[in-house]
Amino acid sequence: MAVVRNIAEFVKLMRKGDERLLVRALARLDDVQVASLLDILDPDEQDRVLPLLPVERRAEVLGKMRYELAADVISRLAPEEAAKLVDDLDPEDAVDILQEVERASLSQILARVDADEVSDLEELLAYDDQTAGGLMSLDVFRVRKDFTIAEAMRLIQEAEELPDSVFYLYVVDEHDRLIGLITLRILVRGKPDQPIHEVMETDVVTVNSDTDQEKVAEIASRYDLVSLPVVDSQRRLLGVVTIDDIVDVIREEATEDILKMAGAGQEMVDTRSFWASFRARMPWLLTAALGGLLVAVSLQGFEDALRTVPALALFMPVVAGMGGNVGTQSSTIVVRGLAVGYIAGSRVGRLLVREIALGAVLGMIYGALISALAPLMGATADDPLGLGLVITFGMVGCMVIAAAVGTSVPLVLHRFHVDPAIATGPFVTTSVDILGLLFYFWLATVLLNVMV
Amino acid sequence: MAVVRNIAEFVKLMRKGDERLLVRALARLDDVQVASLLDILDPDEQDRVLPLLPVERRAEVLGKMRYELAADVISRLAPEEAAKLVDDLDPEDAVDILQEVERASLSQILARVDADEVSDLEELLAYDDQTAGGLMSLDVFRVRKDFTIAEAMRLIQEAEELPDSVFYLYVVDEHDRLIGLITLRILVRGKPDQPIHEVMETDVVTVNSDTDQEKVAEIASRYDLVSLPVVDSQRRLLGVVTIDDIVDVIREEATEDILKMAGAGQEMVDTRSFWASFRARMPWLLTAALGGLLVAVSLQGFEDALRTVPALALFMPVVAGMGGNVGTQSSTIVVRGLAVGYIAGSRVGRLLVREIALGAVLGMIYGALISALAPLMGATADDPLGLGLVITFGMVGCMVIAAAVGTSVPLVLHRFHVDPAIATGPFVTTSVDILGLLFYFWLATVLLNVMV
Repeated sequence: MAVVRNIAEFVKLMRKGDERLLVRALARLDDVQVASLLDILDPDEQDRVLPLLPVERRAEVLGKMRYELAADVISRLAPEEAAKLVDDLDPEDAVDILQEVERASLSQILARVDADEVSDLEELLAYDDQTAGGLMSLDVFRVRKDFTIAEAMRLIQEAEELPDSVFYLYVVDEHDRLIGLITLRILVRGKPDQPIHEVMETDVVTVNSDTDQEKVAEIASRYDLVSLPVVDSQRRLLGVVTIDDIVDVIREEATEDILKMAGAGQEMVDTRSFWASFRARMPWLLTAALGGLLVAVSLQGFEDALRTVPALALFMPVVAGMGGNVGTQSSTIVVRGLAVGYIAGSRVGRLLVREIALGAVLGMIYGALISALAPLMGATADDPLGLGLVITFGMVGCMVIAAAVGTSVPLVLHRFHVDPAIATGPFVTTSVDILGLLFYFWLATVLLNVMV
Repeated sequence: MAVVRNIAEFVKLMRKGDERLLVRALARLDDVQVASLLDILDPDEQDRVLPLLPVERRAEVLGKMRYELAADVISRLAPEEAAKLVDDLDPEDAVDILQEVERASLSQILARVDADEVSDLEELLAYDDQTAGGLMSLDVFRVRKDFTIAEAMRLIQEAEELPDSVFYLYVVDEHDRLIGLITLRILVRGKPDQPIHEVMETDVVTVNSDTDQEKVAEIASRYDLVSLPVVDSQRRLLGVVTIDDIVDVIREEATEDILKMAGAGQEMVDTRSFWASFRARMPWLLTAALGGLLVAVSLQGFEDALRTVPALALFMPVVAGMGGNVGTQSSTIVVRGLAVGYIAGSRVGRLLVREIALGAVLGMIYGALISALAPLMGATADDPLGLGLVITFGMVGCMVIAAAVGTSVPLVLHRFHVDPAIATGPFVTTSVDILGLLFYFWLATVLLNVMV
């Protein structure tokens, strides 16, 4: 898409301050392109660009922005203006955006939105935004099972406004319970006087309003569905989650996992200003800092060993680092395996054994390699053989510890329904540093005959 | 879904070896559930379960498995049997699976597939599997622009086999060039004698057959599309990419990014056996090993400093580790920002400055915190103030280096069209270890008055 390449030019235009040129540039972009542009601009720039759009385009563009950023834009508007935009928004987008608006502004805005729309919005906002209820749209096209094909067709023809994403008609019984679905294809191919319930598909995959959004995405992608009906405990049809929202969930969850594993949060990506970034970043480093302090304190007994063989210190980074790498590999495999469903409960023991064995073998090979190469690269020691053995078996120990921690921590967290992606990274690194390096120095005192 | 919870039971049933029970258990699961089960089983177990399924279910189930794993299953069958399965498969699934089958087996299988299906398969297999061409299905429902609504309806009613995922009819001119689309909704609501080109939507977003799959997913999700037509340079309609394949791409790319950043590859997740894992894992550690060796060698000049102040070694892990954390945060933000499109070319300089400033401030705060807490936790030194200054400013140095490397490496890789997710992790860690620790020890020689 040319959007991103045009942004530099657009920003240049903004600096010139010629509003007529900006309006003309915006007119040449489609709604999605303008939304992508707004996503990247700074808040003050967003606030300058939005009023340059024709009134009737603003809601469309806002609905295509990233929801958190659209929520920020809305929050900065006067409540009346915000309410007008919310009125114009597709209700589905409105809910997604309003879920990100702070409570105080939210009630100010809702108080000014049209009464009939507000009740729908409030119903949807009552659901947790991480569940099917929070994702769904109330705009479902439903037909009673005793309708004929011709009657269903007429319903569609006469409907005042049809949701953009009608791909299925859902068939309900007299108690509004979901009993089947009709694709528009079935409709077109059916005989006009045939009753709906004779041609409908009865094998309908559904979710509940409190089903977690990750599970919703998993089901939709496993079953190749473009929309997924949401039902209550009596199987009454509440709404429908459409594929575009599911795609957003998949992207969002992937980003979240990536960030968590790197010891980072979504707020770090979203913030632009220095102090906001600072506040977002600061706490994530605390664990690592305390862990590192613990490492320093726990290794304190080995100062004399270091005084005798200072070369031990030079190999600390590679011994601990290789361990950390193996641990990160193990935990990533487990976290991703759990997220995508490759790992079943019954296979856990075998996985752990395999990872530990791998750690031992890899540690042996790389430890020996590094011990052999070090003297060639000019590293000298009084007892090169002894140092080589310490490095090799120190690395084996580090890697075994790393593999065990890296595999088991995410599995344990998962078992207790804590998201395994969080804290796996720093936790693995810190335990490898402490346990692995303690083992490395202990080996040194045994094998190198140094004072302790 | 109950699948995963049932797997332990299913495996127990397999151990008992009562095939009748297994057949009955499989009959109670739907195709997707059986596919999820097969995805998790070991190869020999997969080969035992597949023949227990009724012949007519096998292709359906295979089509719902992860493609790489389905390809492995197919490769282990006799070519005749494999060809029969390929015949029964949905052509779209068949291509996705066959793309993962090795050349030798592939030609063996294709030689035995029905002649009319083979030409479609070969056409699709000619495209790179990472592009729109490799993703698309040839099963597009197309209508000529001079058709009326009634004629288009009749076409649908009379079509022998309609692709499952018909949501749009694509409208082409006399040269087969795509000029618009009709939703089934437009069709139902239109007047029978109206010509198609009067009611069609002309604003059709398209991709080319060589468009990268990541771009395809980006466009589909930005524009909320359930299918995306693929055209050639003359805008002739070649095929269509449907949303279920796009969802797969998004998941696949996210997994790939996560794994790459952790210094791991997809092959690590897929392999089950020890030696296959070993072969997959081994090369990823080489960079880190060589980097670590370089660290040891480059710090060699500081052995005397270590002999004098061995406590310097104790704080190496925390100084380098905190640097590594900040570097990983920076690179993750950039990598994810580039992947999702938050970061535009024009904002790069400002981002770099912000990250470096953040590194300096965070280093100062955490360095001072650790220097202050260390003595309280029992760490002693001859010159606690001097050591504290070395730790604090060493950490500032490390974090600034980490932020600079972590931000700029992915940006540079991206500029040269190399995937920034790869090698960012190990590269950042190694450079922080070398440059950061060199700086830390240099500071020590200056501030602590130790011999060099």
